[in-house]
Amino acid sequence: MAQWNMGKIMHGGDYNPDQWRHIPGILDEDMRLMQLARCNLMSVGIFSWSALEPQEGQYDFGWLDEVLDRIAVGGGKVFLATPSGARPAWMSQKYPEVLRVRPDGQRNFHGARHNHCYTSPVYRQKVAQINEKLAQRYADHPALAGWHISNEYGGACWCPRCQEAFRQFLKEKYGDIQTLNHAYWADFWSHAYNDFDQVEASSPYGEHSVDGLTLDWKRFVTHQTVDFMRHEVAAVRKYSDKPATANFMCIYPYDGLDYWKFRDVLDVVSWDLYPMWRGDSNDYAMAARTSFSQDVARSILGKPWLLMESTPSNTNWMEVCKLKRPGMHLLSSLQAVAHGADSVQYFQWRKSRGSAEKHHGAVVDHVGSEHTRVFQDVMQVGQALEKLDSVAGAQVRAQAAVIFDWDNRWAIQAAQGPRKDKQADETVFEHYFALRKCGVNVDVIDSQCDLSGYQLVAAPMLYLLKPGVSENIRKFAQKGGTFVATYLSGVTDENSLCFLGGTPGGGLGEVLGVWSEEIDALYPQDQNAVVFPDGRSYRCGFLCELSHLRTARALAVYGSDFYAGMPALTVNDFGAGQAYYIAARTEQAFLDDFYQKLTLEKQIERPAGNLAPLEEGVFVSQREKGTVKTIFVMNFSAQAKHVALREKSYTDLLSGACVSGAVDLAPWDVRVLQYC
Amino acid sequence: MAQWNMGKIMHGGDYNPDQWRHIPGILDEDMRLMQLARCNLMSVGIFSWSALEPQEGQYDFGWLDEVLDRIAVGGGKVFLATPSGARPAWMSQKYPEVLRVRPDGQRNFHGARHNHCYTSPVYRQKVAQINEKLAQRYADHPALAGWHISNEYGGACWCPRCQEAFRQFLKEKYGDIQTLNHAYWADFWSHAYNDFDQVEASSPYGEHSVDGLTLDWKRFVTHQTVDFMRHEVAAVRKYSDKPATANFMCIYPYDGLDYWKFRDVLDVVSWDLYPMWRGDSNDYAMAARTSFSQDVARSILGKPWLLMESTPSNTNWMEVCKLKRPGMHLLSSLQAVAHGADSVQYFQWRKSRGSAEKHHGAVVDHVGSEHTRVFQDVMQVGQALEKLDSVAGAQVRAQAAVIFDWDNRWAIQAAQGPRKDKQADETVFEHYFALRKCGVNVDVIDSQCDLSGYQLVAAPMLYLLKPGVSENIRKFAQKGGTFVATYLSGVTDENSLCFLGGTPGGGLGEVLGVWSEEIDALYPQDQNAVVFPDGRSYRCGFLCELSHLRTARALAVYGSDFYAGMPALTVNDFGAGQAYYIAARTEQAFLDDFYQKLTLEKQIERPAGNLAPLEEGVFVSQREKGTVKTIFVMNFSAQAKHVALREKSYTDLLSGACVSGAVDLAPWDVRVLQYC
Amino acid sequence: MAQWNMGKIMHGGDYNPDQWRHIPGILDEDMRLMQLARCNLMSVGIFSWSALEPQEGQYDFGWLDEVLDRIAVGGGKVFLATPSGARPAWMSQKYPEVLRVRPDGQRNFHGARHNHCYTSPVYRQKVAQINEKLAQRYADHPALAGWHISNEYGGACWCPRCQEAFRQFLKEKYGDIQTLNHAYWADFWSHAYNDFDQVEASSPYGEHSVDGLTLDWKRFVTHQTVDFMRHEVAAVRKYSDKPATANFMCIYPYDGLDYWKFRDVLDVVSWDLYPMWRGDSNDYAMAARTSFSQDVARSILGKPWLLMESTPSNTNWMEVCKLKRPGMHLLSSLQAVAHGADSVQYFQWRKSRGSAEKHHGAVVDHVGSEHTRVFQDVMQVGQALEKLDSVAGAQVRAQAAVIFDWDNRWAIQAAQGPRKDKQADETVFEHYFALRKCGVNVDVIDSQCDLSGYQLVAAPMLYLLKPGVSENIRKFAQKGGTFVATYLSGVTDENSLCFLGGTPGGGLGEVLGVWSEEIDALYPQDQNAVVFPDGRSYRCGFLCELSHLRTARALAVYGSDFYAGMPALTVNDFGAGQAYYIAARTEQAFLDDFYQKLTLEKQIERPAGNLAPLEEGVFVSQREKGTVKTIFVMNFSAQAKHVALREKSYTDLLSGACVSGAVDLAPWDVRVLQYC
Repeated sequence: MAQWNMGKIMHGGDYNPDQWRHIPGILDEDMRLMQLARCNLMSVGIFSWSALEPQEGQYDFGWLDEVLDRIAVGGGKVFLATPSGARPAWMSQKYPEVLRVRPDGQRNFHGARHNHCYTSPVYRQKVAQINEKLAQRYADHPALAGWHISNEYGGACWCPRCQEAFRQFLKEKYGDIQTLNHAYWADFWSHAYNDFDQVEASSPYGEHSVDGLTLDWKRFVTHQTVDFMRHEVAAVRKYSDKPATANFMCIYPYDGLDYWKFRDVLDVVSWDLYPMWRGDSNDYAMAARTSFSQDVARSILGKPWLLMESTPSNTNWMEVCKLKRPGMHLLSSLQAVAHGADSVQYFQWRKSRGSAEKHHGAVVDHVGSEHTRVFQDVMQVGQALEKLDSVAGAQVRAQAAVIFDWDNRWAIQAAQGPRKDKQADETVFEHYFALRKCGVNVDVIDSQCDLSGYQLVAAPMLYLLKPGVSENIRKFAQKGGTFVATYLSGVTDENSLCFLGGTPGGGLGEVLGVWSEEIDALYPQDQNAVVFPDGRSYRCGFLCELSHLRTARALAVYGSDFYAGMPALTVNDFGAGQAYYIAARTEQAFLDDFYQKLTLEKQIERPAGNLAPLEEGVFVSQREKGTVKTIFVMNFSAQAKHVALREKSYTDLLSGACVSGAVDLAPWDVRVLQYC
Repeated sequence: MAQWNMGKIMHGGDYNPDQWRHIPGILDEDMRLMQLARCNLMSVGIFSWSALEPQEGQYDFGWLDEVLDRIAVGGGKVFLATPSGARPAWMSQKYPEVLRVRPDGQRNFHGARHNHCYTSPVYRQKVAQINEKLAQRYADHPALAGWHISNEYGGACWCPRCQEAFRQFLKEKYGDIQTLNHAYWADFWSHAYNDFDQVEASSPYGEHSVDGLTLDWKRFVTHQTVDFMRHEVAAVRKYSDKPATANFMCIYPYDGLDYWKFRDVLDVVSWDLYPMWRGDSNDYAMAARTSFSQDVARSILGKPWLLMESTPSNTNWMEVCKLKRPGMHLLSSLQAVAHGADSVQYFQWRKSRGSAEKHHGAVVDHVGSEHTRVFQDVMQVGQALEKLDSVAGAQVRAQAAVIFDWDNRWAIQAAQGPRKDKQADETVFEHYFALRKCGVNVDVIDSQCDLSGYQLVAAPMLYLLKPGVSENIRKFAQKGGTFVATYLSGVTDENSLCFLGGTPGGGLGEVLGVWSEEIDALYPQDQNAVVFPDGRSYRCGFLCELSHLRTARALAVYGSDFYAGMPALTVNDFGAGQAYYIAARTEQAFLDDFYQKLTLEKQIERPAGNLAPLEEGVFVSQREKGTVKTIFVMNFSAQAKHVALREKSYTDLLSGACVSGAVDLAPWDVRVLQYC
Repeated sequence: MAQWNMGKIMHGGDYNPDQWRHIPGILDEDMRLMQLARCNLMSVGIFSWSALEPQEGQYDFGWLDEVLDRIAVGGGKVFLATPSGARPAWMSQKYPEVLRVRPDGQRNFHGARHNHCYTSPVYRQKVAQINEKLAQRYADHPALAGWHISNEYGGACWCPRCQEAFRQFLKEKYGDIQTLNHAYWADFWSHAYNDFDQVEASSPYGEHSVDGLTLDWKRFVTHQTVDFMRHEVAAVRKYSDKPATANFMCIYPYDGLDYWKFRDVLDVVSWDLYPMWRGDSNDYAMAARTSFSQDVARSILGKPWLLMESTPSNTNWMEVCKLKRPGMHLLSSLQAVAHGADSVQYFQWRKSRGSAEKHHGAVVDHVGSEHTRVFQDVMQVGQALEKLDSVAGAQVRAQAAVIFDWDNRWAIQAAQGPRKDKQADETVFEHYFALRKCGVNVDVIDSQCDLSGYQLVAAPMLYLLKPGVSENIRKFAQKGGTFVATYLSGVTDENSLCFLGGTPGGGLGEVLGVWSEEIDALYPQDQNAVVFPDGRSYRCGFLCELSHLRTARALAVYGSDFYAGMPALTVNDFGAGQAYYIAARTEQAFLDDFYQKLTLEKQIERPAGNLAPLEEGVFVSQREKGTVKTIFVMNFSAQAKHVALREKSYTDLLSGACVSGAVDLAPWDVRVLQYC
């Protein structure tokens, strides 16, 4: 596996010189401005297929040669992209099979991007050819730092070839049709198949009520996309062993691909992040959401990742594309580094002149000069990153983890009942946020990840249990781990077949020491409460499970309604560990207090050394390499904040100053402190 | 016509043993639990086609034999279903014509349910075959109580065969194309046809602006569905004369089929009802809505009906699937009986393990035992029903009726203007609710029903007049009946052609003694008032008709706007009767007071003997068999209520206690009182 | 070019006798009622194709002969329609190619209206044939006043023939494919074409992200519709030279056709207007919106236009079809005349008996008599118009103009960013409204119109600059004109390629003397302020441009946020003129005060002579012919209003009274005053 190791935190962005090659002077100016902005890692060639192969089999690499040469001369590096994110018009025209088919069976016209079939043999052949050409030509180019495979993979195709591939996928998974029928509980609504060749993809215009099929179709889409990426990488690997990545998309709301399944085909994880910063108190939660995505990005391979895209200014696709307020660009860029990024990269270097993204933020605006607020902000980040060489490659180690599992997301979405909007993603986030407020590092992991390195694992709404998951949780708890679960846990097996004999099932009920008889769904105006013996009370509602104690003991009970007095929070001793169960969706304050108490009790490491929760708006994250620990202290608020520190003496890497005991943060301030 | 007559109120539900036949022990456990729950009528075989005919022409009845035998041994009965609600995959694969075609002309993929063409000869042949097989095999089975034909018929198909059948339907209706052209007012927008073969189904992708066609298409969909059901029943009738039913769906919001047209092909009406109980003050109106559906169910054949499906707990498809609060299951089950149901049945007996309905409430949950609140609630209902043998077969006689007509609903929906949302269903309900608050029995009838048995008939927004309707109303009024109409009455004939010469037309204007010049539509913030000479005033708005007195006299007038002083409520003496006209949509309180006064004046029988309106939350319904009258007194509220009774002495059938003079109801309480 | 010149303000409406020809007595009654209502211009034959050519090649003109003869006898005139708004069923059946194809490539079924392909050779041939027949037969009929070509052209077709025509359109526009590629900035997302035959229409199911293509497709749809209309007119012109028009649709929200492109093929502009009058304070802004459309109607050919359709009562298609309150019909009819209309016409004369428009307001209702409020209102308008002969043909001359440009609307809609909803139309309207409040006449013009006749030109959000526009603005300012621009000005060239070198570009930056660095988008709850040195402050937000002064000087600055103190309102001396720049979207009050000050300073003529702004609800418009000036003073409010007048003595044309000095308006009052 190729390793990403540049020895520094890289800075750069998507660079599309092919859009500008017919305009004299632009390339020279780009090189000048990159130096000025301290940009040293540019992603080149994304969507360049029509420039590289303007006619079938006729190639034009001249412009790309020049771009790479010029960048190399300036000491910069390049992420060279395979151009499969969009194809030239000649290909759609000659081979209509490369175009995607919609769920109703109709084939799209040419256009847009990612409008192609990952199964099409022609498309795969054409992609392999161009990828090989690129790899062969640039494998040894001094500018080449790595491979940017395609761009933001996504979507699905319902063409006959994909349908056939889906059936093949199911055959391999289930072996015989009766096994599939059982997994799909196919006697329901007469859905049993006699043969795999009767199976069709999940579609609103056909089968959309078989949860198992819905789930498998989503898994297949990931499977086929990974397979396509493997095909792309294989072509590159004929000539080059530089690290390969595929840029992923923000987790909210995109859930179309299970990114954990890309682990074997990625050398380094990279992510595109576009938080909706507003310059007001909304940014606190937004920062937490963003760090959530970043913690997923890091957890997938358990090592530093790359911030492949972010905007130096605003986006163009949000409902309201608000500008980044002063200070936010540095703060949000360093937030990524804090959570394990070894680069800060942008979409886009030079603002497109026409078409869909001509109003998306860019380092270089249409005005073309460095004399803009945005360019100055980017320069500031470039200067800051130059001071963080010692952070490059450093790990983020977490003793706490939150399980956020794609199969589980999909299963909960597919499930009809106990309410339409189940807010599963939001609920996982609420637990994560509560942990982050304690000031601890947090991993965000798949349910099948190894838990042995953690002291605390939260698994909110872990509805679907994949093979081994329950066993791992049992082992984790038995050996002393602290496990936290909620309502709607352990409801189904991996195929979304409900466990018989009671919920939580699959062995999880014993860990938690409760069984759940019913689950109530409340209207927005309905409310209940989690009441502690000492009188403390928190609002709850939305979903409230009616559970009975088996071996657990109740720590709090419901305050009203016909299930007043039934357990709302329980704890169960299991082996050397403990398992907590939260029966209802609560207000955030409950989780904040719960995790604050729990992380103190379990002595989860707090990098800043704080015992009290961090002040509102403040985040801390720690990276470590060998014995060197670097903490990032960030203030996502418009108020000044005070953070007490554990150690007596730190070096502020950005200012070079010495910091001791505590740090005072200005609004939207960020400090990078190294223990010295 | 086969009669439903079991001599008792049956108890049971949808039972899907085919989903569980491969799991040992489940069948034994089901039999044990049915005894415990006093379930004696199970619907079996719904959606079992793939289990019954796993390959084309290969049948497997073994599992069904065993199920029926076991139920018979336990003394239970079975509604045996024809499996046409969904077809096996082999059929869709071999005969794609069985699949439904969408309004854009594209054929669906296999999947879901009711995704088939009712016209397809292949589908009809296959259905006839399996139905005959079932009827032949089980006609004489001791468990067989009746035939459950298909399941919740619904939807439509736009395939060429259906289009051809539609044209045939039109030919039979209109005879020649010029008659159709006139009915459709086809010179409008050049819509005249030269020949029936030019007519296509109403579709958003083609003709959707011809009200007459829109209406006829809806009528055809009912016609073809009834024809399909007739085809199904005919196959069954070759071997069995047991009663047949088709389970209908809740009237709000489903309006796809005119259920009155099924009268000739049904032996007993059955209905699936899923009210959204919330355990708070919303339940009052919800209970009224539910009884409205129940009163339709009873009125169609004018005799007891069956509650074919209800949930013992929550559903899985509502926005918020709230649990039934304690007491609600008994209360809501007996509400059906109060309104004429001779059964209380559930969907579903045992909660499905996978697929779309695995979270829908069931008597037996995934935990599998009787030790759940829900199972205990079901047992309680079972025990209660055993005490109501004397009610089985009893009629609900009403002196008041509300007209709720499918053609009228469709015509009002299809009409553009005088506002988009005309709230016709809601308006009919408001009149019904006002009558129910008086404590009188109410029938809910089609406009072509015989009115001669009633003393009071309300026809809110009777926009479309089918042949004979106006004449019947005239006769009804002439002979002394009291008729109530509103704005938007008598606007069009049966084809939605407007009457010329003024509204209300078709002869209704003479009955009401008014003519309406214009109709005003008000914005939500606009308001007017209905003002009585004594100063009483009620809010009105939404739609306000500007009418002139012909022979009627004004009882109240508009309070403001440029039509202040114009009649808002009128009465007209017509023969021995009287006809009231309400010119605008009013607040509910107006209708409450209006019907309270009217029912007292007209001495409409109040089973409880109350003169004052019932307290909020309270409903009364009466069933009678011979001289035995049973009244159901129900409290759909969280407050205790008091109901004064007419007779001195009743037996409380549930407790056996004697009740005299009055009854005090606990919250969510229900009493079944027999005059003795 | 045929001239419309009837010597009086005409009165009439859409008349569909073909719908009634089989009902005896209706035609006689129509003739009687038209006399009574003073209706002298009826639009006949719209949608009559199936009545005129019931079978292919078989014609029936008998009914039309009779109608025209009868109207002529009564002294009336007719707008004879070509029937191409809908085709007979036989045509769709025999020639499916005439039916429209949707953006997904599927062909519609027969039905509705405007469901045909403007490119289809068959359709064009059939239209030419029927048009010729009509022209030949009625060219010399004494009733014929003009040609009503089709009806409310609209929509688009995605069939292969239209696609081919689109490619031809592009070839003619761009010459070679590389020019097109540059204009579309086609290297973006690999969108470059090798050949025109690869280009497909913009479609959500294909290419929808190339702004240039999106824009060209919209232009093509207009181009092809104009071409179709030219084809229609050519057929008519073989026999008749009477004036031809096509009735256009209300500008909000319809933007599907650039009506300015019809200038060469229209002899007189006509418009269909359906304001949502509510009889309350909402009517003030509604009246302004309506006059905006009317001022477009007049500006297109710079001469009187026709109000081809309006409702005498309510419509049937609005969410809430409220009745016109007393007085509104006269007031709103004369508003059209005030803004240059030489007719007041209705849809519809006699209310349709069936189908989609049977509840749309009409002069003659289903009741069939003149004894309705609506008919009396229409009579009153007829009587009023008879007194306005001296106004017929009079011009509306404006010294102020607002630019409202279709290409610009489309470009702003197509642009992604800086926010989704950019409210461009609404913003243009706000400027217009502010000017109208001053009591000045206003033209609403295309950006390529000649500006030399104006003293003040406002160009809000003129994002796209077509060829010559910037030059014209420069010339206009240089010669002493006052130019007003806002944020998002001069961003792209005609193909929506952004100008390089800074915004406003294309030469506009020099005129305004500013350059804009960034644009901020604010959430609804965000707010900033435009602050003047004297302390006056106005709310602003939504979009705020961060601009720098070049040669301009700041008149006001932002009040808060990180760009507090940056220019919010600037003025630049340019030649003999001045150019104002408003950096943000402001509250209406800012624009009101800004234009009040500006129009006073620039001495823009105020027909009423007022110096203060008009009172709320009041509008003034002036028409002039030779030396005769007529002012219309209108009160769109429920309060009495006072308007001071410039001249000492006027004749009130409606009452004949003499008015001097001032006029007192009752609620919803209108006065037509001629200086004498």
